[in-house]
Amino acid sequence: MYREEIKVLDCTIRDGGLINNHYFTDEFVRAVYKSLTEAKVDYIEMGYRSSRKYAPPGDFGDWKYCDDNAILRVIDGIDSDIKISIMVDAHRVLEQEFKPVDQSPVDMIRIATYVKDIDKAITLANRCEDLGYETCVNIMAISAENEYDLIEALDQVAKCPTGTVYVVDSYGYFFCEQIEHFVKLFQTHLPGKRIGMHCHNNQQLAYANTIEGIRHDSNLVDGSLFGIGRGAGNCPLELLIGFLKNPKFNIEPILKVIQDYMIPMREEIEWGYMIPYAITGSLNQHPRSAIAMRNTEDKDKYAEFYSRIFGVE
Amino acid sequence: MYREEIKVLDCTIRDGGLINNHYFTDEFVRAVYKSLTEAKVDYIEMGYRSSRKYAPPGDFGDWKYCDDNAILRVIDGIDSDIKISIMVDAHRVLEQEFKPVDQSPVDMIRIATYVKDIDKAITLANRCEDLGYETCVNIMAISAENEYDLIEALDQVAKCPTGTVYVVDSYGYFFCEQIEHFVKLFQTHLPGKRIGMHCHNNQQLAYANTIEGIRHDSNLVDGSLFGIGRGAGNCPLELLIGFLKNPKFNIEPILKVIQDYMIPMREEIEWGYMIPYAITGSLNQHPRSAIAMRNTEDKDKYAEFYSRIFGVE
Repeated sequence: MYREEIKVLDCTIRDGGLINNHYFTDEFVRAVYKSLTEAKVDYIEMGYRSSRKYAPPGDFGDWKYCDDNAILRVIDGIDSDIKISIMVDAHRVLEQEFKPVDQSPVDMIRIATYVKDIDKAITLANRCEDLGYETCVNIMAISAENEYDLIEALDQVAKCPTGTVYVVDSYGYFFCEQIEHFVKLFQTHLPGKRIGMHCHNNQQLAYANTIEGIRHDSNLVDGSLFGIGRGAGNCPLELLIGFLKNPKFNIEPILKVIQDYMIPMREEIEWGYMIPYAITGSLNQHPRSAIAMRNTEDKDKYAEFYSRIFGVE
Repeated sequence: MYREEIKVLDCTIRDGGLINNHYFTDEFVRAVYKSLTEAKVDYIEMGYRSSRKYAPPGDFGDWKYCDDNAILRVIDGIDSDIKISIMVDAHRVLEQEFKPVDQSPVDMIRIATYVKDIDKAITLANRCEDLGYETCVNIMAISAENEYDLIEALDQVAKCPTGTVYVVDSYGYFFCEQIEHFVKLFQTHLPGKRIGMHCHNNQQLAYANTIEGIRHDSNLVDGSLFGIGRGAGNCPLELLIGFLKNPKFNIEPILKVIQDYMIPMREEIEWGYMIPYAITGSLNQHPRSAIAMRNTEDKDKYAEFYSRIFGVE
């Protein structure tokens, strides 16, 4: 599949940070930045810009805050034209500060929001656009939203200057037919905006669903190295790059950083396809119950887990 | 997705046996048989009926031969209406003997063949149908076949009494558009026959591609417990059963046998998504080079493996 407009965002540091409270070493972040630069990936997402009031220092590593200085420290000396993205939770915005874009290493701010917080997301998007940043609005957990409310939110976002709105399958619930439905729904209600795809791999469909989004003209797609991300993780970047036939991409630096860093890391922290995440995904539930049970002695008691949560939420 | 005609075949013992030379214990085979029976899966494939001349005893476990007596031994005393399938390689047929179906525990014989051996497959299918067995013809590695030759083979199979012909993505190369193409091609050239789907998980697309087959009226679909199978493995049965909304299915016995047997087994033998299989899949190559490198000290040197095999075959 080749379409020049398709851009790829790597969310390794950001979504992966949800597993280890954002305690990645500078060496690792630097290696990822360097490899994605060489691979010609379009965007790297460094983490969240969280409020220190909501997320007290000491509980989290640097990539929970993504201060401009921290970003400048890890990219220092690496010649790169990759764009840097950070994420902000619309419902947890307090004193986060953003310098004007020309005084910051950040290029893009992605605003994660639930439908109920869409007004906060739009306010924040307006503020970031005014400062010169590219912005995205990522509407989470749409598989669990009332479609009437979702459409109302989309119609509001349509009037805001943000360039990209994401279809986010937070629970890893969708299969291809639903992806097609939502991408088309977003296109109908967001004329002129780019549609993004962020999929979770609970049912081993993150890559397939990303392809489905691309087939329906989604042009900003997320992946992560070896699929790292909370729970079952994300669309594996290595598969996505193999699929996109844009000759600018180079897969070898990606394979190298996976073998050097992700395989050893997978021995320390857990992500990827596991039965409890498949269960919550297939039941259209948040993975929190699966994450919790994976931290107990009963982490492999799948049948008991299933019978416990089936029909609960 | 609900369609009464959709039948599910579990190939845990057969495709899983390719990893351990078919040395599964009777206890394990019996547990799988029992759990699939309780889950109301339609078929269980026990292994291959191989010639002892080509596959000398001593090198392989019982499930390389699937003698009627071995099957009767493991199913003894379990009340079940699951159908039993065995596989035969058309290009390695010698003295394999089949009793008439009413004297055998076997219900179905699946004939695996390459396009070049289609005449052997048809001869064998005729023989098995005459003995009263249900038969399938599984045409392997079609992603690497000349389509003109494939169509000629399909037109020959169309004249044979076999009821089902499988689309087999042996290399784990296809994405949904190719699945649609081949299912429709098979339907065009095999009027009245059921189309089967057997997918490999090299690129994490086995489940997605099986769904795609189902969407285009494939009605016999393969899965395996926790996706076990050679290399990257197969479509995970647990996902497939979660997707098929036929109320007869019961997922809990499947989850139980996975937690009791497959998770410990995964510590002993290797299958599932790994970068070398993703590489051979994306390059439309047989996984043999990936299987070989996984048995060396360099099993995680992905970049080197990629640059070595890229463009070789």
